[in-house]
Amino acid sequence: MPDSLKKLIESLKYLPGVGDKTAQRYAFSILDMPKEQFDFFLDNVSNIQEKIHLCPICNNLTENDLCSICSDSLRNKETLCVVEDVKSLFLFESLGIFHGVYHVLKGLISPLDGVNPEDIELDKLIERVEKENFKEIILAFKPSVEGETTALYIKKILGDKNIVISRIASGVPIGADMEYMDSMTLERALLDRKNLE
Amino acid sequence: MPDSLKKLIESLKYLPGVGDKTAQRYAFSILDMPKEQFDFFLDNVSNIQEKIHLCPICNNLTENDLCSICSDSLRNKETLCVVEDVKSLFLFESLGIFHGVYHVLKGLISPLDGVNPEDIELDKLIERVEKENFKEIILAFKPSVEGETTALYIKKILGDKNIVISRIASGVPIGADMEYMDSMTLERALLDRKNLE
Repeated sequence: MPDSLKKLIESLKYLPGVGDKTAQRYAFSILDMPKEQFDFFLDNVSNIQEKIHLCPICNNLTENDLCSICSDSLRNKETLCVVEDVKSLFLFESLGIFHGVYHVLKGLISPLDGVNPEDIELDKLIERVEKENFKEIILAFKPSVEGETTALYIKKILGDKNIVISRIASGVPIGADMEYMDSMTLERALLDRKNLE
Repeated sequence: MPDSLKKLIESLKYLPGVGDKTAQRYAFSILDMPKEQFDFFLDNVSNIQEKIHLCPICNNLTENDLCSICSDSLRNKETLCVVEDVKSLFLFESLGIFHGVYHVLKGLISPLDGVNPEDIELDKLIERVEKENFKEIILAFKPSVEGETTALYIKKILGDKNIVISRIASGVPIGADMEYMDSMTLERALLDRKNLE
């Protein structure tokens, strides 16, 4: 196998979940791409790391000074949605149901994995909350020990300010069969039950 | 989502079997690569199509005038192994059990899909066989209607020359359970039975 092909296969294995066989399949498909497609592909890969940086306000990805959300004057600047990563932000945005602004953490606190509040840059969130005038902070973390820990930590630090701190609901997903739910989800669904009005 | 990220995701979907979710996961991992890793990745992608071309003799991939096999004086130039694609060639080479030379077709004849002998460049193989002095031609195609058709076609054209034309054995794979074999495999295994000596 030519050396350059071997190296291409090696570098494709940097992609998550890509092993030897898949990397080889990808390498062959890159080799076989029509010139135009290959150029588009290469062009898009080549400057991506230079072009994109984090929004200095919220950590969203952006090509400009501020991200498209922070620079949008129509967004409600009094409601902040805190997410664990930019993927969650994109997910919420794709729904088009949230009109406030975001703050992207660098993950969730996980003492077992040695991830402490400073590792996820919680201080940046706290500074921001102190400077801006939020009325509500929605914590949109996944329901897990890490999500729980991070939520409790934020509540502890920001709880004494005059800001509503809420957490997205957790329970049985719409359309799911009860029998396939784990006990923690059912317990949470029961605890967080809502009165019918 | 920044435009450049959208475009990167679009181009990652060119890779075989990669949909929206996987492309997004790959794009984020490319964004997150340490600079050094990203540069290596980019470097290996960027010149691959220029660097690699087909060996003019056998269609193997190479960076040089001739491929590493055709230019190797130690290979047995009297035994030719014909494969359907370069992946098969790499597979056989990785075993280290074949010491002859190869010829890589551009697929297999498949009348149902409109793939005719000229589409897989069989004339190039025939020209080569007429010029060189092969004693045996091994057809290493997968056992399928297409493999069978291509083998029969080659046998018909080259059968009158003084060359042994053989085909790799087909049957029950080593370690397989009989009960999981399909009827065609079992039939072939029975037909191609070998006398114990």
